Amino acid sequence: MWTITFLGTSGSVPTRNRGMPAIALKTEKEIILLDCGEGTQRQMIISKTSYMKVKRIFISHMHADHFFGLPTLIQTMSLFGREEKLEIYGPQKIEEEMDKLFSVGHPIIDFEVESFSVSDGEKISFGEYSMEFIEVDHSVPTLAVKIKGKDKPGRLKVEKLLDLGIKPGPIYARIKRGEDFYYNGMLIRSRDFLGPPKKGPTIVYSGDTRPMEEMIDFSRKAHLLIHEATFPDEEADKAYESYHTTPSQAIEIAKEAGVKALALTHISPRNKSLERREEDYKKEFPSLIIAKDLMKLWIAGEEISYEDISHTR
Amino acid sequence: MWTITFLGTSGSVPTRNRGMPAIALKTEKEIILLDCGEGTQRQMIISKTSYMKVKRIFISHMHADHFFGLPTLIQTMSLFGREEKLEIYGPQKIEEEMDKLFSVGHPIIDFEVESFSVSDGEKISFGEYSMEFIEVDHSVPTLAVKIKGKDKPGRLKVEKLLDLGIKPGPIYARIKRGEDFYYNGMLIRSRDFLGPPKKGPTIVYSGDTRPMEEMIDFSRKAHLLIHEATFPDEEADKAYESYHTTPSQAIEIAKEAGVKALALTHISPRNKSLERREEDYKKEFPSLIIAKDLMKLWIAGEEISYEDISHTR
Repeated sequence: MWTITFLGTSGSVPTRNRGMPAIALKTEKEIILLDCGEGTQRQMIISKTSYMKVKRIFISHMHADHFFGLPTLIQTMSLFGREEKLEIYGPQKIEEEMDKLFSVGHPIIDFEVESFSVSDGEKISFGEYSMEFIEVDHSVPTLAVKIKGKDKPGRLKVEKLLDLGIKPGPIYARIKRGEDFYYNGMLIRSRDFLGPPKKGPTIVYSGDTRPMEEMIDFSRKAHLLIHEATFPDEEADKAYESYHTTPSQAIEIAKEAGVKALALTHISPRNKSLERREEDYKKEFPSLIIAKDLMKLWIAGEEISYEDISHTR
Repeated sequence: MWTITFLGTSGSVPTRNRGMPAIALKTEKEIILLDCGEGTQRQMIISKTSYMKVKRIFISHMHADHFFGLPTLIQTMSLFGREEKLEIYGPQKIEEEMDKLFSVGHPIIDFEVESFSVSDGEKISFGEYSMEFIEVDHSVPTLAVKIKGKDKPGRLKVEKLLDLGIKPGPIYARIKRGEDFYYNGMLIRSRDFLGPPKKGPTIVYSGDTRPMEEMIDFSRKAHLLIHEATFPDEEADKAYESYHTTPSQAIEIAKEAGVKALALTHISPRNKSLERREEDYKKEFPSLIIAKDLMKLWIAGEEISYEDISHTR
């Protein structure tokens, strides 16, 4: 099961109820942060998200609302004795930007932090999941990311194996690993003894962007598309001018891409009509989720569920 | 009347209830920020503290918890059309540090921000108030600040003036300004026609420091001393090692200095005994205030009052 915690859901500036952009994605073993706006550390404490489990951080772009939570978070990790390396992925020149950011004042960072600039179309596998990047249409170099969990082998057809006289043991493990091999002179093809594989979850996160055609293919059939909705529909022209998206534009992409669920975030204080029009939007796209700070969302198999645990301030 | 709003009262790391260090001091005309930790902008929104009125910011030192709220706050000021210059005062090399901090990523800052490094003993007058700095005993160059409101002229002795045949008019204004002059051949000495001057408020803020002798003289007879209390009394040795203070040490300074009120802040999550022992500490120093996030405090004449408006999370 993967858990997504919305740590901050505002855009550009914070509000009383929405902090700066940050999302924690918890896979089976670790946490990936998607952007790390100011206040992320505190939101992690409040939502009980362990920052020591954070292994990788994706920074969509270098606008101030998306990364100024990094220095204190990293220094706290160090204060608490972290030794494991931390990796930061982001757009071009992120290495230099992070070097500069982490050298302001008198920082104490006693573990390795490595930054990697990635580019359009790049895909990296990390065992448990892969990350794929696409360049999006914003005013500065900006990336969206697709995180895909590894498929898991289907259920072992135990009865069929027993019928052939193959008893539980190391052979079963080889079949589960997908190996083909001879056993007592008999060719064992794993796929004959396994049910359909369980597909890993696919999540797409697009930080700031204009709506773009390429996002449809990029998020095709994803379990969850997390898309920005900075401006209200009434201000589509302003959204375009400032390289942002409106709720209806994001819904259009989600529909075309056939994603299972769409979560709207990066909701600017000027997008006042979004929550008022929630029911209308849900008629367009029933599995729409309007992200709130501290909301959690779970993906297990094909099931997506969420609970609104926003605190009332 | 001056208003003090505690925006963040934690030390080193935030907690569920305490944000990173920042205090807003509102004088009659403007706001001075005392430190600007991460999350300051959001706390200002929640406490309805206008960030457009901030004219000067004092940064006690360049540890990460004390200044990482600056970049987003300043960019938001710019976004909202600020044109008035902003001044930042802090320890040596703050000019270079701010230049670096404000150049990370793609900042948009369309108004002038000027930084000034100040040193031990320096005093600057700004008309409405003065700021005086003292170097304190911390692990990196760190300053405390004393902010002193200008004394106001005493009440005009109108009856005495009328007895001498001097009627209301420009003469009264000259007396109020403290001028001495001849009027109809008569020497008018302002002090003869004015009651005792109303003393301006004096506030001392010490960010991070070991307890130090010089703080007693520096805060002598101040209306309010805001002092750090990072560690509990039980950990006085650790406080010393890491250049911090305990509540009893701060109380000792407040007593020796004869300040009217003492507010303890920069309360680390490890100082768990402070609030439990509040009543004991108040026996030692009755006008003790344990700062909480969003708490407000008012100084009018010799009166100091405060209200706890902390939100329950």
